[in-house]
Amino acid sequence: MRFEYEGIKQAARRIFEAQPFTPKEAADITDVLLTSDLFGIESHGIQRLQMYVNFIDENAIKLKNRPELISETPLSALIDCHEYMGQVAGIRATEMAIDKAKRHGMSIVCVRMSNHFGIAGYYARKMALEGLVGVCMTNSEAIMVPTFGRHAMIGTNPIAVAMPAEPYPFFFDAATTVVPRGKLEVYIKNDKPIPDGWGVDGDGKVTADPKTVENCIKTKRGGGILPLGGAGETYGGHKGYGLGMVVELFTGILSGGFTGDIVRSIPKTEGSCQTYMAIDYGMFGDKKAIEKSFSDYLTRIRESDKADGETRIYTHGEKEMLAYDDRMANGLVLNEKTAGEVKNLCVRYGLDPGEYMFRKD
Amino acid sequence: MRFEYEGIKQAARRIFEAQPFTPKEAADITDVLLTSDLFGIESHGIQRLQMYVNFIDENAIKLKNRPELISETPLSALIDCHEYMGQVAGIRATEMAIDKAKRHGMSIVCVRMSNHFGIAGYYARKMALEGLVGVCMTNSEAIMVPTFGRHAMIGTNPIAVAMPAEPYPFFFDAATTVVPRGKLEVYIKNDKPIPDGWGVDGDGKVTADPKTVENCIKTKRGGGILPLGGAGETYGGHKGYGLGMVVELFTGILSGGFTGDIVRSIPKTEGSCQTYMAIDYGMFGDKKAIEKSFSDYLTRIRESDKADGETRIYTHGEKEMLAYDDRMANGLVLNEKTAGEVKNLCVRYGLDPGEYMFRKD
Repeated sequence: MRFEYEGIKQAARRIFEAQPFTPKEAADITDVLLTSDLFGIESHGIQRLQMYVNFIDENAIKLKNRPELISETPLSALIDCHEYMGQVAGIRATEMAIDKAKRHGMSIVCVRMSNHFGIAGYYARKMALEGLVGVCMTNSEAIMVPTFGRHAMIGTNPIAVAMPAEPYPFFFDAATTVVPRGKLEVYIKNDKPIPDGWGVDGDGKVTADPKTVENCIKTKRGGGILPLGGAGETYGGHKGYGLGMVVELFTGILSGGFTGDIVRSIPKTEGSCQTYMAIDYGMFGDKKAIEKSFSDYLTRIRESDKADGETRIYTHGEKEMLAYDDRMANGLVLNEKTAGEVKNLCVRYGLDPGEYMFRKD
Repeated sequence: MRFEYEGIKQAARRIFEAQPFTPKEAADITDVLLTSDLFGIESHGIQRLQMYVNFIDENAIKLKNRPELISETPLSALIDCHEYMGQVAGIRATEMAIDKAKRHGMSIVCVRMSNHFGIAGYYARKMALEGLVGVCMTNSEAIMVPTFGRHAMIGTNPIAVAMPAEPYPFFFDAATTVVPRGKLEVYIKNDKPIPDGWGVDGDGKVTADPKTVENCIKTKRGGGILPLGGAGETYGGHKGYGLGMVVELFTGILSGGFTGDIVRSIPKTEGSCQTYMAIDYGMFGDKKAIEKSFSDYLTRIRESDKADGETRIYTHGEKEMLAYDDRMANGLVLNEKTAGEVKNLCVRYGLDPGEYMFRKD
C-alpha cells in the first residue's frame, strides 16, 4: 500500500507531539523514521511508530527524563540519554558534532543509556549534508555470536559513513552481522530455511532454521546471528566479529555505558550507546575538488564491466536515492499491519485518518 | 627455521642503513617489519626485506625524494610521500597524529603517493601504546571486485584499530576483502582449490582455481578477490565492498591521491594512500576506568561458552600477543627462502651472516 509522504509526516508529528514531545523533537523523530521509509528501508521506518508508542506507554522510553550533557571539550561531548527517546539524543549529538567539526575540523560525540534511534545512516547523512564526512555507529542488544562461541555477546552494531558525491551521495550503513535480525523474520514469515552461515543454534552449530535462531536470541540461552563473514574463519567471520568489537569500543566503552551483552538485559531498559564523528575534509584541500574526485571514482565503479548475467553495479547510496525519488513520487510503502496501526494511532490521538492518510496506489 | 630476534633486527637495520637510510629511519622500518614477524604475521615481515631492496634498486621506492608536509591544521596534516619509503612517511604521520591528539583530543593525518608500508596494525598499535585509540587504513592496488562486477576496482584496504586492554591489548587489523592476496599463493603452492566465494574469474564468475584469480590480478583483465561477505549480497558481500569504499574515501580521496584502481597502474609507481587517526579517550572520562571496562568485556567474551567442538574464543590481539611471547622466547620464524635472502643481503652489504643470524632451533 502506498501513502502520500506529506500526510504521513504530519500524522506522525502530531502523534509524537501528543506523547508529549516538543514540536522540534516530534519533527526530528519523524524525519528520522520517514527518511528510512524514503530510502526504502521500511524495517526502520514508520513501521516502528506503534512500537515507540508502546515503549512510551510502558515507560521503557522514559519521557520524565531528559538527555544530559555530562562533559564537553572543543572536539567532543558525552551525553547521557537517561533512557529518553534515542532520536532526540541522536539529533542533539549530531548537531554538536557538526558544530564542533565546522569550528575545529573534526569531532566525536558519544551517547550512553540511549534507546532505539532509527538508522545510523540518518545521522551520518545529516553530517554529510553539511559538507562533512559523517560517521555514526551504535551498539545494540547482543545477537552476534563471536567466532567459535555459542552465546550472543555483541550487538548487530552497524557502521554508517556518508559523504557528498554526485549524482548519488555516498551512503554506507551496514550491520557488522552477516544479516540484520529483521531478515530472520522475513524467512520465518515465508517458512523458508536460511542460508548456511547466517545463524547458529544453542550449541553454536550452524542451523538453517530461522525460528531456532530467533528463539535463541529471545531466550538468551545460546545461539544467534553470525558476524559478517559467517561461521569460523574461512570466510573472514573473525573480521566481522572484530568490526562488531570496534563498534562496541567506540560506543559502549568510550561512553562509559553498556556493552552489547548488557544492553536490554534489565527489564524496561535498553541502554544502547551511539557515537557520532564528523570530519571537515576542507582540512585536506578544496572541498569541491575532493567531492569531484570521489564522484568520478564512484562513476568509474558503476560503469566498470558487469559480471556475467548482471546488468548493474551499485555504489552505496544509489539504491537509497532511487527509492527516495520513487517514494516521493509514488508514496511511502506501508504494509497492511502498519497502515492499520497508523490509522488506530490517529484515532487514539484525536486525528481524522482521512485527513492524513492519502492512498497513492 | 627459527632465528634469534635481536640478531635479525641488527642485520635489517644495517641493510637499511646501507641504502642509505638514516639510523632512525632504518630502525623504524625494521621495527615495522619485525613487529609483524613477532605477531606471527610472517607475510608482512622480514620476508619482504629482499622485495624492498629490489624496489630501491629499481627506483620503485625513490630514495632521492623525501616525504613533504603539504598542509597542516592543529588536528590534521597532509603528507606527500613522493614515493619514498612508505614506513618512513607512516611513522612520521603516526607521530604527528599522536602529538596532535595529545594536545587537542583527536587528529587525522593523510599520506598520499606512498608505497608498501607494512601492516596497518603497527601504526594503530603505536598510537595505542601512547594511550590513544589508534586507527590506520590503507588502500592498495585494486584486487577487490565490486558486488556484481568483474573488474578489480578497490584495494585489499585493511582497517586497523588498536586500544590498550589487559592482559591482551585490542589489536584489530583486517583486509576488507574476504582474504588477502597472500592466501592465494598458499593455495597455489599446495595445489589446492580455494573455497567458493573467495575469488572470481575474468567473467566475474566464482572460481575455485587460485591460479586463475592470481593471474587475473596480475594481468588486470578482469577477475580478482571478492569483498568480505563473498559473492552477491546473500552473505553481505555488498557490506565488504562498502567497507572497502570507506577506506578508499578516507585514504585516496581525502588525501587527493590515487584510488585503488589507479594505484600501481603506472610502471615503477605505487602511489598508495594511508590515513591515521588518533583519539584521546580521556575526553570521555578516567582513562584507566575506560581501559578496565574494555578489558572486562574482552574477558567476558573469551570466557563465554564455546561452540560444540571448539575450545577457545579469541579476542583480537590475543593471538598476536601469544605469537609475540613465542617469537621472543623461541626466535622469529623464517622459511628457507627468506633465510637465504637475508644471508645474501648481509653478504652484499659486507656483514658476516654468522654475527647476525643465530639459529634458535
